[in-house]
Amino acid sequence: MKKIEHIGIAVKDLEAANATYKAVLGSEHYKTERVESEGVSTSFFKIGESKIELLAATNAESPIAKFIEKRGEGIHHLAFAVDDIKAEIHRLEKEGFKLINTAPKKGADNKLVAFMHPKSANGVLVELCQHAPS
Amino acid sequence: MKKIEHIGIAVKDLEAANATYKAVLGSEHYKTERVESEGVSTSFFKIGESKIELLAATNAESPIAKFIEKRGEGIHHLAFAVDDIKAEIHRLEKEGFKLINTAPKKGADNKLVAFMHPKSANGVLVELCQHAPS
Repeated sequence: MKKIEHIGIAVKDLEAANATYKAVLGSEHYKTERVESEGVSTSFFKIGESKIELLAATNAESPIAKFIEKRGEGIHHLAFAVDDIKAEIHRLEKEGFKLINTAPKKGADNKLVAFMHPKSANGVLVELCQHAPS
Repeated sequence: MKKIEHIGIAVKDLEAANATYKAVLGSEHYKTERVESEGVSTSFFKIGESKIELLAATNAESPIAKFIEKRGEGIHHLAFAVDDIKAEIHRLEKEGFKLINTAPKKGADNKLVAFMHPKSANGVLVELCQHAPS
């Protein structure tokens, strides 16, 4: 793992949360993106070498809607940047970790991503994140 | 805010979690520190310009014990590095945020810290973190 790529935060209202995090971070979000396959609208803020990703549900079946229903708004996942996501998945499986995605899938922000099971990492939903060659 | 200083993760067993995060991150924790005033034992891993801080309770009244009892293990707080913590506290209060600590206090890792109320930031416990002149 090279760095924290981003922190994903589940929010109810993306526009209101954009205003809140603009005030906290002292900078504007630099892009928004809708990922229909995941049922989310996202917005991104830069912070040092990392990003804050705000996530709002686009439908009631969205994992973000279910997360908020169960736990309320808050940090949803922690994403680490990797150079070679397939190699990292393989390495983690050999270490005995349970991966939710055993093959990379397309995520927001032009990334290939894979999630580890939170039970594998003390309740933290860890995402591996490789910049996708376009 | 300059960068993500660290992510704090509440764990039940610090030694077991050290082994888990060593396997996830591919590196050893570089220090441990007990903060009696907060009822926590901590360990730190470097990841890029940021850190992962694992937090275990040292007594049943510890905020970490209460967090785990209520929500289970998981991400406890998100800390941002600031140059001037007093100025940031003042700025955030003027923006209308509720601070848990309206004056900086001494935290782990030779830092002056202040927490914002999670209700102020979409359920995220935000910590401001200034390197303390020693």
